[in-house]
Amino acid sequence: MPQSDRSKTPYQQLEARMAKISAINGAGEVLHWDMSTMMPSGGYQARTEQLAALNTVTHNMISANDMPDLLDAAEADTSLDVWQQTNLKEIRHQWLKSTALSEDLVEALTRAAAACEEKWRVARPDNDYASLLPELNALLELVLESGQAKAEVLGLSLHDAMLDDYEPGGRVAEIDEIFDDLTDFLPEFIGKALEHQASKPTPVMPDGPFAIEKQRALGEQFMKTLGFNFNHGRLDISLHPFCGGVPDDVRLTTRYDEEDFTSSLMGILHETGHSLYEQGLPPQWRAQPVGQSLGMSTHESQSLLIEMQVCRSAAFLEYAAPIMRETMNGQGPAWETSNLQNLYTRVKPDFIRVDADEVTYPAHVILRHRIEKAVFSGDLSLADLPGAWNDGMQELLGITPPDDRRGCLQDVHWFDGAWGYFPTYTLGAMTAAQLYNAAKKQDTSIETEISKGNFAPLLSWLRTNVHNKGRSVTPQGILIEATGKPLDAEIFKNHLIERYLS
Amino acid sequence: MPQSDRSKTPYQQLEARMAKISAINGAGEVLHWDMSTMMPSGGYQARTEQLAALNTVTHNMISANDMPDLLDAAEADTSLDVWQQTNLKEIRHQWLKSTALSEDLVEALTRAAAACEEKWRVARPDNDYASLLPELNALLELVLESGQAKAEVLGLSLHDAMLDDYEPGGRVAEIDEIFDDLTDFLPEFIGKALEHQASKPTPVMPDGPFAIEKQRALGEQFMKTLGFNFNHGRLDISLHPFCGGVPDDVRLTTRYDEEDFTSSLMGILHETGHSLYEQGLPPQWRAQPVGQSLGMSTHESQSLLIEMQVCRSAAFLEYAAPIMRETMNGQGPAWETSNLQNLYTRVKPDFIRVDADEVTYPAHVILRHRIEKAVFSGDLSLADLPGAWNDGMQELLGITPPDDRRGCLQDVHWFDGAWGYFPTYTLGAMTAAQLYNAAKKQDTSIETEISKGNFAPLLSWLRTNVHNKGRSVTPQGILIEATGKPLDAEIFKNHLIERYLS
Repeated sequence: MPQSDRSKTPYQQLEARMAKISAINGAGEVLHWDMSTMMPSGGYQARTEQLAALNTVTHNMISANDMPDLLDAAEADTSLDVWQQTNLKEIRHQWLKSTALSEDLVEALTRAAAACEEKWRVARPDNDYASLLPELNALLELVLESGQAKAEVLGLSLHDAMLDDYEPGGRVAEIDEIFDDLTDFLPEFIGKALEHQASKPTPVMPDGPFAIEKQRALGEQFMKTLGFNFNHGRLDISLHPFCGGVPDDVRLTTRYDEEDFTSSLMGILHETGHSLYEQGLPPQWRAQPVGQSLGMSTHESQSLLIEMQVCRSAAFLEYAAPIMRETMNGQGPAWETSNLQNLYTRVKPDFIRVDADEVTYPAHVILRHRIEKAVFSGDLSLADLPGAWNDGMQELLGITPPDDRRGCLQDVHWFDGAWGYFPTYTLGAMTAAQLYNAAKKQDTSIETEISKGNFAPLLSWLRTNVHNKGRSVTPQGILIEATGKPLDAEIFKNHLIERYLS
Repeated sequence: MPQSDRSKTPYQQLEARMAKISAINGAGEVLHWDMSTMMPSGGYQARTEQLAALNTVTHNMISANDMPDLLDAAEADTSLDVWQQTNLKEIRHQWLKSTALSEDLVEALTRAAAACEEKWRVARPDNDYASLLPELNALLELVLESGQAKAEVLGLSLHDAMLDDYEPGGRVAEIDEIFDDLTDFLPEFIGKALEHQASKPTPVMPDGPFAIEKQRALGEQFMKTLGFNFNHGRLDISLHPFCGGVPDDVRLTTRYDEEDFTSSLMGILHETGHSLYEQGLPPQWRAQPVGQSLGMSTHESQSLLIEMQVCRSAAFLEYAAPIMRETMNGQGPAWETSNLQNLYTRVKPDFIRVDADEVTYPAHVILRHRIEKAVFSGDLSLADLPGAWNDGMQELLGITPPDDRRGCLQDVHWFDGAWGYFPTYTLGAMTAAQLYNAAKKQDTSIETEISKGNFAPLLSWLRTNVHNKGRSVTPQGILIEATGKPLDAEIFKNHLIERYLS
C-alpha cells in the first residue's frame, strides 16, 4: 500500500485506484487512436503487446485481493453523497465482472482479438472469410468463456451478460420485443418510403472533385459551430471513422472521398455528436466510473441525434447549405438546399451498414442481432455464418450480397471480439429520436436557432439532460428524466413517417 | 500469480515480467511522442495522469515483494546463457534502484517534472526564470531525494548515482578527467579553428524559401538511403526534435525552417542515427533489459556518428550535394559542394547548445556539468543559477547570453527532472569519433561507398559492432571490442584538428 493511502478512507482509496485505472484506460485509448491513424504497419506486434499489458494491469488493479474488504468498508460509509454511492455501485459491478476473469483469460482475449482483427484486415479486401475462420473460432471461444464467467457472477444469461459490457442493465428480452416490433413495421414502411421518394425528383450529386483540404476545413467549421472544443481534441483521418481518446482530449477521425464530400461531412457530424458527449462529461467525475459515458446506446444516441435528427433536417440545411456552396464553389441545381436535403435523406436498401440510411439501418442491426443469438445459443456455427447472413439480408431487405466483403466481413466488431454490441446502434437511433423530440418541445427555440447556425440552445439542453449526468443514472433513467417515459418505439416510427412519407 | 506463471522457471517469470514492463514503457514512449507532436494543449493534464499512472505501475512491478526470491532463484539457475545472465544482472540492478524509491516518490517526481516542464514552456519564451523557480526547487528536491536513495542502495556518491540512470557504470571522476583535458584543449583550439576558417572564403547560405514538403521529401530520401525502415517508423514535426517510440515503431521528429533547409536536414540525419540504433537492436531481446539500448553516450554516439562524422564529411556531400541541388532547384555558388561543406562545418561560438557546431559544443556541456556539480554539492542555489551560467559562458566561450532564454532556460532537461544527463552528449561525440575512426580502418570501403550513396557497409559495421549488442556489453566494452581501447580523447581531438585546421 502506498504511504499516501494510509490517511484515506476506504472509499477514497477506491477512488484513487479507479482514477489510476481510468488514466491507464485513457492511455490505451490514445494508443488505439494512434494505431488507426499514425502507426506504421510494422508497429502492430509491439502495439498489441502494449495494449495487452495495459489490459492485464487494469484487470489486476480492479480484481486485487484487498478489493472485497475495501468495497465492504466503503459501502458502510454513511457520509457518501449520491454520486459517490452510485460511483461505488459501479466499482462493485466492475469488480464483480473482473473477478470472473483470470489474468490469463484477459490476456488471451486481447491477443486473440488482435490476431483475428489483423487477419480480418486482409480477409475483407480479399473476400476470404474462410481464411480467418480459425482465428474467429479461437476468439469466439474466449469471448464465450468470458461471457459465461461473467454471466455466472452477475446471475444473468450468457447473452445478457455479453450485452452488459455495452449496455448496462440491458436485457435481450427487451431488445427482442423492440426488434420484433420494428421487424413488423419496417418492410412495409421501407416500401412506402421508396414509393414516396419515387414521386419526388431524383436528387443530383454535386460534381467533384472536392479537395480534401476544403472538406477538412468545412468539417472543422461545422465541428466548431456545433460546439467541439479543439483545445481538447483533434480531427484526423482513419480507414474507419471513430471518436476515441479521452474527454479532455477527444480524437475524432473521418475518411475523405474526393468525389463525394457529403459522406465524409456526415461522418464528421456523426462523430462530433459522440465527441460533444465526451467533452461534456462532468469534469470533476471524469476519472471515476460514475463520470464516464453511459452505455453504447446513449453514446450512439448522441451521434445520431446530431447526425440524423439535426444535421439531415431542413432547419440545419437552411443554415449549412449556403456554407457548403461557398466553400466548394457550388453552383446550379445540385447545390440547391432542397436537393441537398433530398440527398441527405435518400432511402436505398443496400449491403453496407455504415453507408445505410436511417430507414434501412435497423434491418442491418436486426440481422446481426439474430445471428448473435443463433451463435450464442449454439444453433449457428461460424462456418455457416456467411450463408445465414445472406439469407437474412434477403429476408429483411430483399437483397443478397454479391460477396462476403459486402456481407458478413464488412464490420470489424465480431473479428475484434465485440459480440453483443450491434443492438445498441438501433437503440441509439430510437433514443435520439425520443430525446430530440422532447428537446424541441421543452425549448422551442432549438430548431429555429439551428436554422441560424446557433447550436447553443441544443447543446445546453444536451449538456443538462445527458452529458453532465455521466453514469449517475441508467440509460432508461436518462430517457425518463428527460422525456417523461422509457424508450418508446412509436416516437422513432413517427419520426420516420414524418420525414419519409410527408 | 497468473496461472501461466506456474510452469515457468524463476528466470522465465522474470523475463515475462520485464516484457510486460517493457511494453508499458513502450506505451509511455508513444504517449510522449504524441504529447510533442499531436496532442492539443488541453490534453496536458490528462496525459500527465496517464504517464504518472504508467510510471507507478512499472515501479510496482519491478519492486514487487516476490522479486528478491525470484532474483535469488534465477541467479542459482546454472542453465542460463551469457545473454540471459547479463539480462538477469540488469534486472537485479533495476530492482535495486527501484527498491530505493517509494511509489509515492515516483508519482510525486513524475508530477513535479510535468508541472515544472509546463511552467518552462511559458517561462522560456517569456524569458522569466524567476517564475518557475518554485517548481524547479520542488522538482530538484525530489530529484535529489531519489538520487540520494539510489546512491545508498548502489553504494555510490549522489552524483554517480544520478549519472547511473543515463550512463550505466559511468563515474563523475572519469568525466571530470576527460572534461579537464578538453577544457585545456578547447579554448586555444577554437581560436585556431576560427583563424583557419577566416582564411577560407565565407560560405554563402542558399537562398530560400524552401517549401516544407520539399524539405520533408529530401529528409525522407536520405533517411531511407541511410537505412531507416519506414515500415517500422515515421517522421513528424515537433518543437524539439527527438527520436522516440519503440524499436519496432521509431518516431522521429524534426522542425522545418523555410529559410534554412540545412538545419532541419542535419537535425533529421542526427535523429536518423538514433533511430538506426533503435531499429538495429537485437530483435529477440528487445523486450528485455539486455536487448535495449545502452547508455545515453552510446545513443548519442550513434546520432553524432551519422550527423557529425558521416554527414558533414566531404564523402557524404559528394553524394548528397547533387541531390540537394536537384530537390531544391539550387543553382549558383551557394550550391557548390565545397560551399555546402563549409556551411556544414562552420565554427561559431554562440549561445544555443542545440545549434552549436561540434567544436564549441563541448563547452556548452562542460558548463552544464560544472553547474550540476555545484548544485548537487550544495555550492550553488538554483536562485543563483542564471548568474553562474552567464559567468561560465563568458569563461568557456567568451560570450555572455543577452537573456536567460538564450541562457539557462534554453534546454528542457533540468526543468523535466533530467539532472546528470548532459555529459553524455560529449562522451557520445568522442565515442562517435573513435567508432568511425575504427570502422573506416576495418572496412576501407565504407567512406568510398558513402560518397556513392551506399551506406550498407557502414550500417553493417554499426549493426555488428554496436546495434546488435544491446546491453550485453558496457559502453566501455563496446569501445574496447570495436576499437581495441577504452574512450580515448586523442581520437576526438585529432578528428577536430583534421577537419578544422587542414
